[in-house]
Amino acid sequence: MSNLPRMAEVSLESLHRVFTTPEEKNSTLGRIEREISENLEGFLQSHIVAIEKDLTDVERDFADATIPKQPIFVSQQADFLLDKLVAHSVHTASPSFVGHMTSALPYFMLPLSKIMIALNQNLVKTETSKSFTPLERQVTGMLHRLVYKESAPFYQQYLHDQHYALGAFCSGGTVANITALWVARNNMFKSTPEFAGVHKDGLAAGLIHHGYRGAAVLVSERGHYSLKKTVDILGLGANNLISIATDDNNRIVLSALKAKCEELQQDNIKLMAIVGIAGTTETGSVDPLDEMADIALQYGCHFHVDGAWGAPTLFSTRYAPLLKGIERADSVTIDAHKQLYIPMGAGLVVFKDPSALHAIEHHANYIIRKGSKDLGSKTLEGSRPGMAMLVHSGLHILGQQGYQLLIDQGIDKTHQFAQMIKQHQDFELCSEPTLNILTYRYCPSWLSAYLNAAQPSTVHSLNEVLNRYTKYLQKVQRGRGKAFVSRTQLTPLRYQQQAIIVFRVVLANPLTSIDILADILTEQAMLAQAPEAQRYVDELKALIS
Amino acid sequence: MSNLPRMAEVSLESLHRVFTTPEEKNSTLGRIEREISENLEGFLQSHIVAIEKDLTDVERDFADATIPKQPIFVSQQADFLLDKLVAHSVHTASPSFVGHMTSALPYFMLPLSKIMIALNQNLVKTETSKSFTPLERQVTGMLHRLVYKESAPFYQQYLHDQHYALGAFCSGGTVANITALWVARNNMFKSTPEFAGVHKDGLAAGLIHHGYRGAAVLVSERGHYSLKKTVDILGLGANNLISIATDDNNRIVLSALKAKCEELQQDNIKLMAIVGIAGTTETGSVDPLDEMADIALQYGCHFHVDGAWGAPTLFSTRYAPLLKGIERADSVTIDAHKQLYIPMGAGLVVFKDPSALHAIEHHANYIIRKGSKDLGSKTLEGSRPGMAMLVHSGLHILGQQGYQLLIDQGIDKTHQFAQMIKQHQDFELCSEPTLNILTYRYCPSWLSAYLNAAQPSTVHSLNEVLNRYTKYLQKVQRGRGKAFVSRTQLTPLRYQQQAIIVFRVVLANPLTSIDILADILTEQAMLAQAPEAQRYVDELKALIS
Repeated sequence: MSNLPRMAEVSLESLHRVFTTPEEKNSTLGRIEREISENLEGFLQSHIVAIEKDLTDVERDFADATIPKQPIFVSQQADFLLDKLVAHSVHTASPSFVGHMTSALPYFMLPLSKIMIALNQNLVKTETSKSFTPLERQVTGMLHRLVYKESAPFYQQYLHDQHYALGAFCSGGTVANITALWVARNNMFKSTPEFAGVHKDGLAAGLIHHGYRGAAVLVSERGHYSLKKTVDILGLGANNLISIATDDNNRIVLSALKAKCEELQQDNIKLMAIVGIAGTTETGSVDPLDEMADIALQYGCHFHVDGAWGAPTLFSTRYAPLLKGIERADSVTIDAHKQLYIPMGAGLVVFKDPSALHAIEHHANYIIRKGSKDLGSKTLEGSRPGMAMLVHSGLHILGQQGYQLLIDQGIDKTHQFAQMIKQHQDFELCSEPTLNILTYRYCPSWLSAYLNAAQPSTVHSLNEVLNRYTKYLQKVQRGRGKAFVSRTQLTPLRYQQQAIIVFRVVLANPLTSIDILADILTEQAMLAQAPEAQRYVDELKALIS
Repeated sequence: MSNLPRMAEVSLESLHRVFTTPEEKNSTLGRIEREISENLEGFLQSHIVAIEKDLTDVERDFADATIPKQPIFVSQQADFLLDKLVAHSVHTASPSFVGHMTSALPYFMLPLSKIMIALNQNLVKTETSKSFTPLERQVTGMLHRLVYKESAPFYQQYLHDQHYALGAFCSGGTVANITALWVARNNMFKSTPEFAGVHKDGLAAGLIHHGYRGAAVLVSERGHYSLKKTVDILGLGANNLISIATDDNNRIVLSALKAKCEELQQDNIKLMAIVGIAGTTETGSVDPLDEMADIALQYGCHFHVDGAWGAPTLFSTRYAPLLKGIERADSVTIDAHKQLYIPMGAGLVVFKDPSALHAIEHHANYIIRKGSKDLGSKTLEGSRPGMAMLVHSGLHILGQQGYQLLIDQGIDKTHQFAQMIKQHQDFELCSEPTLNILTYRYCPSWLSAYLNAAQPSTVHSLNEVLNRYTKYLQKVQRGRGKAFVSRTQLTPLRYQQQAIIVFRVVLANPLTSIDILADILTEQAMLAQAPEAQRYVDELKALIS
């Protein structure tokens, strides 16, 4: 009797049961949970199908847009999810999944997440979160301190004072970047007797009132695509995110940045913000933040640093100096679900000035009333889960030294891998690593000499074939399911900024060993030399014959 | 040996262990997990302290902004969380917690969430989510169908066609509302040879190019505060969200809406969107959506429906007609973490036109490339977790009939509670329920006659005292920890739109019984008549003597 699956019957009684009775230990869900608790890697390895199934085939299992009338048993749904969803999901925790920024998680994040979900708090207000509110403020303060290193009295004063906020917690880097530039936009113009502020009267009124033709944000051409989204949402228009050239290390060219600032000033375009990048998504490069802070100061605009990826480098005594100048930023984005190793859906932005977020404050009658401690008055999102609890736990269980170790081993390994690529005659390193990201491509030794010496037009044609070759290899390797590198497109100076497709590797998972990386190169070389790839070799040879 | 807690030591070996070795069954975390799995209500009841602790006291446990250098043991952190965080969190699942929109969850959501967290997918792209991408598109399609009831061939055509999208999944209603109005704003002006569109050239350029003085969004005075945020973010300015009066049922006054549309047209302000509400946050009222659709059509603007709370009423054959006209909306917001009973952090917006989201499409080189199936090209957020899996499970395990039962019992119970309040001589019902939300206040029988007959200035003074009385009672009841109702402020016509503070009750938790509701009234009456509250009685009596 007690073994009967629940729901699949429509009555108030079964409804009550579904809200109050736990799954049986030996039900499908019970078994899955136990397996995950006892042996996560085993669960993932045995349930995720390694060899890629075509997405169009997968879609067949999710093709019905009808909401079923009748309930089904929990066990039926669990079986369905296991066979159809989990089986064809991505093993993001795998040590050979080095193509994206999603890595393995510390094991303790799993039971802690369960507590978080069981408590189901809503951080928009204290009435639905209570202790989670001071906890989130503390976590925000800790990361503020990581960046800005203010004094103890500073944090004593601002950490829990509801009239101020050291930052805003959110679902990820995109919302963090939007929040930062939303603040910058609203603070752009002082209000006057005739103009109530961008906040109230809008952007167009602000520009007209102050006599500007438009407003712009500057970032290097390696800037994250979320910034384009941001200027679109904020009403500036995507064309007003202006790309600045990068050098051969994928860092913004300061002279080009200055020249553009001058030009905008002369064109009567208001310079709203300069964005520096601490860890570009594609190459892990870090802009010269200190010099950019000088320029922002000179032109009187907001200086934002997108540290979604790289900000946690500050945990490392050895590598923190790479981010010199970040402490001069008006705002800094940090993604917790990246290098703080928190499950998906946690990011934040910290602000140097504890009153910066006043620029976007909103209130209501039933919650986030003026003077309340409700966090929702200064966040873009409304209802939010208690993810800060997981960040708090990471910061305590790993500590600065644990995160330092994670950062150090990742960067060291990336430099080692860069050496391996350079020493391998059939690969070309396409971006020298600064942090733990690098790019490279397959480029057989017999071709290298030509790429260095041939006529520009031939080099161009060779690169076009190589681009297709790289794309092919990336897809085939992914499809085989042993390893995954991603790909992107760079415009290196050495090839006259021709668009070059490259493999991209992100080394954040501490379980990724040098042996695994060596295997990835071996598999790629093998695939490149396999009969199926011969057509690319033929094309290349035809061009140089 | 195997019982040794992990981390609290900084070495590569301990780092590996923390990523690969599960918690011991008898560790603190292991015990917590088991308790949650076996008896969630017992866990919450025994660990959450019922009697409220002052927030300032709670802050003392979260006062240090220093990131600890040394790691601590997982068990130490677990103990800390249990004693300091969980103890003073809010028992949102309690059947007597009827003040907000966070309710109990079906039990199966817990183990399913664990699978979701263990898989740690990122829905921004297929390379980190694979099968989760078609699953999310299916779920979005199912909720699209709930609202728009298009034909089977329609869903066959659009459900998995990457060039279209039936909606956008996100973290909650606020992001859903922003997304809807972002689309509306970008579609507001057609691009011309001289103007590339709001998307690219910005809002100011668009307004100037088309000769408008500004743009506005109209919503009733019961509109959710996220809409004010939305027009701020989108660059219209908060003043351009224009409040329209409501009638005694808290529904928008159509004649006032039409008059405002006329006025804006004459003032050369572009009408960007009209927002209808299906379930106002404060009173659960539903606007006359069908008539509003007519007006939007007449003035050629976007018609958005904020159904964050009320859209799931469509599951109920009996109550769906209350939302007549919702199927004519260009976009509809639905919160999954509200009446779909999903854990915190899941919402979505559906669009009538599958090409509507083209207006906000963005691409990048490494992901969400043109033509890819990556969902991230048409969402405000970037990285997102696999919450759609939980919505899929809810829709299957509960089915339409299960959700119908949840909706029906909630609305029926609210009407019963309204009757109880009306029949109780010491309470005044302040808004008649439409859905499962109502408001009321304590108003002793000896006072009622005066409120109906006294001079307007006396009524005004009495209400001012009653406001403080209500606020006091709400706080004291919350502090006692037995039950929780929230409070808000309404402006009823019967009191000449004086601001009236009221208790607000939301009846979504199926475990909330009529007995619990009766107890809430009894406790409130007891507190109102207690010696500590005598000062309010004295003040009221002084006014009528």
